[in-house]
Amino acid sequence: MATPSPGYSIIVKVQAPTTFTATSDLTAVVAEAGAAITALDIVDASHESNIINLTCNTRGKEHSRQVKDAIEAVEGFEVLSLSDRTFHMHQGGKLQTVSKVHVRNRDDLSRAYTPGVARVCKAIAKDPVRARELTIKRNTIAVVTDGTAVLGLGDIGPAAAMPVMEGKAVLFKQFANVDAWPVALDTKDTEEIIQIVKALAPAYGGINLEDISAPRCFEIEARLREELDIPVFHDDQHGTAIVTQAALNNALKVVNKKIEDVRIVVSGVGAAGHAIIRLLKASGAQHIMAAGRDGVLEPNTSQRDEHRQWLADNTNTEGFSGSLKEAMVGADVFIGVSAPNLIDADDVANMNEGSIIFAMANPDPEILPTEASQHAAVVATGRSDFPNQINNVLAFPGLFRGLLDAGASDITEDMLVAAADAISETITEDELNPSYVIPSVFNQRVAPAVAAAVAAVAERNGVAPTTTETQDDIDF
Amino acid sequence: MATPSPGYSIIVKVQAPTTFTATSDLTAVVAEAGAAITALDIVDASHESNIINLTCNTRGKEHSRQVKDAIEAVEGFEVLSLSDRTFHMHQGGKLQTVSKVHVRNRDDLSRAYTPGVARVCKAIAKDPVRARELTIKRNTIAVVTDGTAVLGLGDIGPAAAMPVMEGKAVLFKQFANVDAWPVALDTKDTEEIIQIVKALAPAYGGINLEDISAPRCFEIEARLREELDIPVFHDDQHGTAIVTQAALNNALKVVNKKIEDVRIVVSGVGAAGHAIIRLLKASGAQHIMAAGRDGVLEPNTSQRDEHRQWLADNTNTEGFSGSLKEAMVGADVFIGVSAPNLIDADDVANMNEGSIIFAMANPDPEILPTEASQHAAVVATGRSDFPNQINNVLAFPGLFRGLLDAGASDITEDMLVAAADAISETITEDELNPSYVIPSVFNQRVAPAVAAAVAAVAERNGVAPTTTETQDDIDF
Repeated sequence: MATPSPGYSIIVKVQAPTTFTATSDLTAVVAEAGAAITALDIVDASHESNIINLTCNTRGKEHSRQVKDAIEAVEGFEVLSLSDRTFHMHQGGKLQTVSKVHVRNRDDLSRAYTPGVARVCKAIAKDPVRARELTIKRNTIAVVTDGTAVLGLGDIGPAAAMPVMEGKAVLFKQFANVDAWPVALDTKDTEEIIQIVKALAPAYGGINLEDISAPRCFEIEARLREELDIPVFHDDQHGTAIVTQAALNNALKVVNKKIEDVRIVVSGVGAAGHAIIRLLKASGAQHIMAAGRDGVLEPNTSQRDEHRQWLADNTNTEGFSGSLKEAMVGADVFIGVSAPNLIDADDVANMNEGSIIFAMANPDPEILPTEASQHAAVVATGRSDFPNQINNVLAFPGLFRGLLDAGASDITEDMLVAAADAISETITEDELNPSYVIPSVFNQRVAPAVAAAVAAVAERNGVAPTTTETQDDIDF
Repeated sequence: MATPSPGYSIIVKVQAPTTFTATSDLTAVVAEAGAAITALDIVDASHESNIINLTCNTRGKEHSRQVKDAIEAVEGFEVLSLSDRTFHMHQGGKLQTVSKVHVRNRDDLSRAYTPGVARVCKAIAKDPVRARELTIKRNTIAVVTDGTAVLGLGDIGPAAAMPVMEGKAVLFKQFANVDAWPVALDTKDTEEIIQIVKALAPAYGGINLEDISAPRCFEIEARLREELDIPVFHDDQHGTAIVTQAALNNALKVVNKKIEDVRIVVSGVGAAGHAIIRLLKASGAQHIMAAGRDGVLEPNTSQRDEHRQWLADNTNTEGFSGSLKEAMVGADVFIGVSAPNLIDADDVANMNEGSIIFAMANPDPEILPTEASQHAAVVATGRSDFPNQINNVLAFPGLFRGLLDAGASDITEDMLVAAADAISETITEDELNPSYVIPSVFNQRVAPAVAAAVAAVAERNGVAPTTTETQDDIDF
């Protein structure tokens, strides 16, 4: 049976008798019903009764009803309402715009708006580079989706994708002070998406593509990178790759192996698998096998699209032929971005001593972490209820902070490697252990470290502008 | 000679001697140079000197240099820097995004983002109407431009238009708590703009079109109104029309005339003139003449586009033929949205007793207000340095507040009339006088009054949804 989860947290408003034992009776019956109480407040009172707001985690809708029934079965208790804390939090959306200037009087208005603003507009028209100095471009990115591959939900459309995009914007701001704006597009046409993002680009300092289904995401990212002068990043690919690489760096330290030496099996040859393998190679991996539904991709075979073709041509140098399970025999590392329950404990047992399992299929991994840990030395997943969570939140805020700070025009592979290294290095040698190869998403050192590393590479790689001083501060 | 203006306000950082008279010497020399001092602070001090920040309004760049030279001509004074307060205010842009929720720990994260957010997404996918409840759509509009008709600057492009769009968003928030986001598009193609705004629309509760040149603005507004289920408003047309109508309502009270009776001459047959005339008619005006460059439009003539054709067919019922100046003979009201210096004091003298002049060409009006007031009973302009400023800020924030509050799907002519009436009615009979026919933009009663009036019409006109209660608060 599932355990009560904060994802199914409810607030029960209860009318209770004024007796001395009423509160303890209530908590006892809720605990008895299997819910986990997280808060209790008396919100209103009269001579006849107390109104109590009880907050508790449940196992879902059905269980919430059982909790309600259990309370009402007690003499003198009545449930006035049940409400869902998650929906509560999303009421009216999660994001707002706030002015950075004060317009208190006509003097302010004449500078923030007409007539004074005209001079600022003219200065940008004359020298477009000044947009980064005089508009929100300096600190603002777009989080762009078409709603076709949202979480595990698939093609739910732009309106239904908004809560995720707003949440992403919230995280950008909280973790790296980046102003991010959700752009959920009501079109699935590749050319149209490219054209729209290009038309929107002048206002933004970067583009974060999000939850766009493969193979369109490849084309959209590649074209926009080529045609825009601001960095374009597909988080589902490169964000995942960065954090996976960061965890692998530390996991290899735990088992005392080197990335050049280990045999790595990647399960999943879609957008995420492709990006992970590219970054593994850029980080020095020599022995990679990529397994799709029909087994390991082989060199000198013809693949159905250019991305699989690249994988076939650039992995499996030994020419191994066989299934995913067969490939795992004698492997050191398994990285799964594929589907639930593809491997079992026996497959892990067949790997080399000191094996590493990253089972990241969402929400149900390729193998349950408890099962994998019977034989593996290090186990990581995408889930928050096990140690070593591979979570993109560790990468994207700091990455864009660094790009904006540097005024970068592009993202290079070196930056992805640097970001991964920065994340792994936030864990010291003293802290490192099999259950702690990747820092917590709330570790406040991560985003600044990633930002600094990325900005440094931007300057080294020549994708950041050299700073020019304005000659004259008077711009009338 | 122009007077010193807050639009040319500078901060002069001066190193001054420590003598008792240094401050008064400094202010004397700056005043002597013709600048208007607004602030003075000692920001740093040592035994040898004081560092003084002096803020003053000047007449422009050349005058700022003269102020600097005048200060430096005084023995012992040195100017360390001159900086422009307007550019200062725009550094880094004027808008930011701010989270409405707190993500302090994993419990918060699991509700604001994955996995909890998935349930919110699914609820919207199942019932799209819930986007207004569970996303920013409820309180957020897009301020859309292509940068082709920005202020009086013309086609300066999307990046250079951003300071105006950001300023507009700042005003939306400040005056009516509407979250507005600047969307500056790098395309001038009518079809492309329509297509992009349609693709962006699911995230927004309304669209404010801004500074798009005629005649494209007509087509874009008309098509978007037809094809979208959220209200679309072109502020340069209807915002101007609302505030003009509001001022006219009160000006007519001052001269004790009725709108049905007066003869109105409108100079300007572009986007603003067209919208003003439509609203004048909706408000009851019977005698309107529309004058373009070639004189007054006449019925039964063929015009070069459908918008002029509509004007020709729906004004000048008496079949007057002649120039703008000729049309003004015997008129009661002149409304100018055209070009500088088209009329003079003699033309005003030729009007009926108790004449009304709204000369709104920007930045230089059709006639100087001082000249018009020699013969007119009421004079208004678009400028802030004369009484009776016709400023769109009085209309757009409250209008969209009302539309969002009502969840309106469209804007009707009744709403424009109601908004104009609400603005005029914020001035009481006791307050009304020839120099006060329109409230200040900082009058805090205006936006709520407009919002309430617009929302009431939305409900009466059936463009607002009937509220439905969610049956169940538990949405797992």
